[in-house]
Amino acid sequence: MGNDLNQKCGDDELVVGLDAGGTRTRVVLAAAADGRLLGEGAAGPGNALTVPMPQLIEHLAEAVAAAVPEEARGRVVSVAGGFAGATAASPDDPGHLNARSALTSALRRLGIPAGPVGICSDIEAAFAAAPGTPADGLALVAGTGAVAMRIAGRRGTVTVDGDGWLLGDDGSGFWIGRTAVRAALRMADGRGPATALAASVGRALGLPGGVLPGDDEDDRGAGWTRPRREAYRMHLLPAVMADPPIRLARLAPLVAEAAREKDAVAEAILEEAADQLTETVRALNPRPGEPLVATGGLLGPDGPLTIPLSDRLVPLGLTLDWVADGCRGAVALARLAHGGGSR
Amino acid sequence: MGNDLNQKCGDDELVVGLDAGGTRTRVVLAAAADGRLLGEGAAGPGNALTVPMPQLIEHLAEAVAAAVPEEARGRVVSVAGGFAGATAASPDDPGHLNARSALTSALRRLGIPAGPVGICSDIEAAFAAAPGTPADGLALVAGTGAVAMRIAGRRGTVTVDGDGWLLGDDGSGFWIGRTAVRAALRMADGRGPATALAASVGRALGLPGGVLPGDDEDDRGAGWTRPRREAYRMHLLPAVMADPPIRLARLAPLVAEAAREKDAVAEAILEEAADQLTETVRALNPRPGEPLVATGGLLGPDGPLTIPLSDRLVPLGLTLDWVADGCRGAVALARLAHGGGSR
Repeated sequence: MGNDLNQKCGDDELVVGLDAGGTRTRVVLAAAADGRLLGEGAAGPGNALTVPMPQLIEHLAEAVAAAVPEEARGRVVSVAGGFAGATAASPDDPGHLNARSALTSALRRLGIPAGPVGICSDIEAAFAAAPGTPADGLALVAGTGAVAMRIAGRRGTVTVDGDGWLLGDDGSGFWIGRTAVRAALRMADGRGPATALAASVGRALGLPGGVLPGDDEDDRGAGWTRPRREAYRMHLLPAVMADPPIRLARLAPLVAEAAREKDAVAEAILEEAADQLTETVRALNPRPGEPLVATGGLLGPDGPLTIPLSDRLVPLGLTLDWVADGCRGAVALARLAHGGGSR
Repeated sequence: MGNDLNQKCGDDELVVGLDAGGTRTRVVLAAAADGRLLGEGAAGPGNALTVPMPQLIEHLAEAVAAAVPEEARGRVVSVAGGFAGATAASPDDPGHLNARSALTSALRRLGIPAGPVGICSDIEAAFAAAPGTPADGLALVAGTGAVAMRIAGRRGTVTVDGDGWLLGDDGSGFWIGRTAVRAALRMADGRGPATALAASVGRALGLPGGVLPGDDEDDRGAGWTRPRREAYRMHLLPAVMADPPIRLARLAPLVAEAAREKDAVAEAILEEAADQLTETVRALNPRPGEPLVATGGLLGPDGPLTIPLSDRLVPLGLTLDWVADGCRGAVALARLAHGGGSR
């Protein structure tokens, strides 16, 4: 790796960009001059508000160490990180302060002599990952949670939603997963129409086959008897409650799958999620043609909401530009801080 | 009390009825012959699934001891209890078994020589509390949670909703409270219209006055600036997260209050809650004219949903009959078990 790196970049100056998310921390090493990718690393969660400080430092150090070979560390001239949990606009909010403190400690531990580190939110980093490193526009995250942000001068200025699974995150993976379980329960107690989600959600939650609407009953519960429907409820509720609520987000792919098979309930759930995300973007008072950078699995190349949301954005004059994460955006910000954008 | 009791009932046979709920256990003592009320007692929570066995026995014993004077205990001929957490139809479900075991222990501890105790769900007990102790009909609970049940032969046979705050309980106090906070957040980030709930919810959650839409701004946020709206969100979210989610139910009365003041958002929340409860009742396939017994604070004499729900039930040929709790129903069931209904 060291030799590879020397071949790739000789003794060029280097920059490091981090994307520290709720489930994983990703790091890339790049050339300061042109942003060329030279190394990558990953480690555990990096949410600056929820990961305790010792683990946060540990995860950051582990991911940076994997991306930056020991012999290259002296040539790092700029570091920037986008952190989940650092979304408040103020640089003295607890998430920003934790992130700065943890990243500084991790770099010191690795002997990386970077000057002041650049800290921003994961959303600001994702926005900066778009081609051309735009300074102003809109960012939309739709993964486990959902939040939209207006960015001005590379800083978030207005936030819409991102209120968490209990109160908001409308149209998110959590919302879709919870709505899928609700649809199954509503079918079981007669409030809602038949849906293939009753079987697929039940299977995913480990319910015994005997209480699922079976394939021999056309898999839509037509022959599902009342006692079995009651038994389904009595098995489903504790199965959901055994996990933290946020884990319902893992059921979102089942809705996408059922919608591909033309299940009307699943299709309606995705349509409603796309409506909600549209409402979230609209509350930012978008101007036609301004950049809209999206991230999160629901809006990726194969994401279940990519097409329905894009369709709804046409009348607003907006086009989705998706990025996988904020690492490249953090690199761009690190280069800008070093003056690298203009040299 | 002992002398009072002797004057009231001489050496008549006695029955005991319990309502063991999620927040309180209530007990009444009555005459077996005519159901005349002779004593009352109360103690802590009695949910048969969530209260650990030693506390459950303790709470039941304390409430029964308060209702039944020592010198009268030898004359108790029948005991019945309706328990939250014993809602599954089967008598060998864990809630039923816990309730039977705890109540038997509590009676033994007090020297009450009752034979087999009658165990039912709190909903079945509430249904039996209606005048005439009906055997068949519908029960609807709308308090912190929401559930409807078809009762046949005094046993619940079909359940609709009651799926808990995370997945259901549509139209419940929790649902109303959470929707109030959502309305406040949606006003703050521009997705929703102005509502007096932003101020009242914020005050109830202890937010500093500086971030609330103030009275000087006509209390509807007309002059609420963007930074203050962002600050409101950043204070509100952790204030809600500091408590267990179910505590959102305590905000339901704020919606009733705002609706009385003609706040359109609050009025719409109550209308939607009434729609949801109607849908829940409708899924039981009600027959015009059959008994519908309601309990829970949302449907009481001054409950915020009493009138809107009653209006919606007229086309179904149903009339709400509200009972405060299941104690009198448990007494009726205890008398029936002793043959007291017919003697």
